[in-house]
Amino acid sequence: MTISLAIVGVGKIVRDQHLPAVAGNADYRLVAAASRNGRVEGIENFGAIGEMLAAVPSIDAVSLCMPPQYRYAAAVAALDAGKHVLLEKPPGATLSEVEDLAARAAEKGVSLFASWHSRHAPAVEAARGFLAGTRLRAMRVSWKEDVRQWHPGQAWIWQPGGLGVFDPGINALSIVTRILPQPVFATGATLEFPENRDAPIAATIRFTDADGLDLLAEFDWRQTGPQSWDIEAETDAGVMRLSEGGAKLSVDGRLLHAEPEQEYPSLYRRFAALIRDGRSDVDLAPLRHVADAFMLGRRTLVDAFHD
Amino acid sequence: MTISLAIVGVGKIVRDQHLPAVAGNADYRLVAAASRNGRVEGIENFGAIGEMLAAVPSIDAVSLCMPPQYRYAAAVAALDAGKHVLLEKPPGATLSEVEDLAARAAEKGVSLFASWHSRHAPAVEAARGFLAGTRLRAMRVSWKEDVRQWHPGQAWIWQPGGLGVFDPGINALSIVTRILPQPVFATGATLEFPENRDAPIAATIRFTDADGLDLLAEFDWRQTGPQSWDIEAETDAGVMRLSEGGAKLSVDGRLLHAEPEQEYPSLYRRFAALIRDGRSDVDLAPLRHVADAFMLGRRTLVDAFHD
Repeated sequence: MTISLAIVGVGKIVRDQHLPAVAGNADYRLVAAASRNGRVEGIENFGAIGEMLAAVPSIDAVSLCMPPQYRYAAAVAALDAGKHVLLEKPPGATLSEVEDLAARAAEKGVSLFASWHSRHAPAVEAARGFLAGTRLRAMRVSWKEDVRQWHPGQAWIWQPGGLGVFDPGINALSIVTRILPQPVFATGATLEFPENRDAPIAATIRFTDADGLDLLAEFDWRQTGPQSWDIEAETDAGVMRLSEGGAKLSVDGRLLHAEPEQEYPSLYRRFAALIRDGRSDVDLAPLRHVADAFMLGRRTLVDAFHD
Repeated sequence: MTISLAIVGVGKIVRDQHLPAVAGNADYRLVAAASRNGRVEGIENFGAIGEMLAAVPSIDAVSLCMPPQYRYAAAVAALDAGKHVLLEKPPGATLSEVEDLAARAAEKGVSLFASWHSRHAPAVEAARGFLAGTRLRAMRVSWKEDVRQWHPGQAWIWQPGGLGVFDPGINALSIVTRILPQPVFATGATLEFPENRDAPIAATIRFTDADGLDLLAEFDWRQTGPQSWDIEAETDAGVMRLSEGGAKLSVDGRLLHAEPEQEYPSLYRRFAALIRDGRSDVDLAPLRHVADAFMLGRRTLVDAFHD
């Protein structure tokens, strides 16, 4: 059965990723969009989700892609109307609101998918499999990129709740929490706030687990030149390196896995499978680690940031 | 059957509250204590929990009362040894570590109690009953006390992870989340950090729920003179006031409920009941709201604080 899909919050990520992924998947038919500013050509467009849900009753599912601060109300409207809901990452501005959404989806018997696109990077499952078969000694996460290149003029990411450097950093955490064999938790963090901004531009988090794992994650938005989205693990079976945001896997320098990036097509296949099986997938671990880091972290002020 | 109890982390709260509550409850026999600095007279004392668990195998349950930053490792040691565990509030320095403890307790088949002593204040259940029978329009939480009086020289509460004014504020949140008829979530917060400290001395959090509730919580540690631990609710049945930290309940100025404070005796009765019934009680909502406020909140710097 084809899923009649609507997209809410039409911005850069929708144009770059969601629309091509949906267009390439025969399980979906895109029937409507709602957005304050953006439009999708060739389908019905609305200014707000309530208006859209009332006008297009054939909608089965909605993808919510607006900034996280505005996602809860839209999700409640969709769930209350009996629609399946996909949440872009991060799934909300608070953990508490997403817990509430999960309870509402269960009550309504519809699927809620708190998606983490980086978990669908090509080599993530291979990395998980590798770590399951050996002993992990230490892990280093290095997620360093140039915010001016990747988030030009996006004011909301600097506002309270916009998460700052954790917006890309949470992608790393979504991979780490998928590939590690057991749960970790933060023991300390440093968050660097530009003196003119309400969100961090850089952060370092130390994690451990019940067996004393040494895990260090470094996120930085001030990286010019080569960008890094790398996870390196020292194990009894060699040094595992998951690089390019989860696209490539090597052990002791030998490339084991490198396929073309297909994150959003894979993500939409998973959403269709959840709907078909009548299940939800709401893993809040990545957002919980970010909230923990904010709660536990030491704040320092650094130079002002100007776009 | 009598529960052989051990207490870990012997400080002010243990002497003021835990020891009298345990002494007054025939379900318990206090058999040992472990603490870096404190001692309990008349029982065996140890410097660390591992040593204690090895030396006194008859222990059935432990109360963990050290600062939250040190609680996880002790809880894992106790759970792995098959002991029931009571966690003082807050249950840990991160949400993630307590999620892991809950999973471990379930695996071991022992009881884990993430306790919130303020939920045992005398009028809390009456307030919950009152709110369940009417329509709530707005709520104001005012938790304002003098940190010099209540936390003299306690350095750990000012360290990262020590939570600052949320240490008392989380008591208010533990009551609010118990008495409200449906979940709330933060939409904005302001956190005031003394320029020489790593934890907030004051905070304001705005919450709402799916029906647009107007809930404002104000926490302040700079209150001299009269102290306030009050929750006021405008409802269709009048203005409900839960005051003195949950001890007194009035509606439209008429006192409905006022009994002597018995928080810790009630808390230990609940722990004994959980052990007897083979159940756990790990409600992380209060700590989740604190983490959400740190993640979502705007930070401001205020005057340095000196003890």
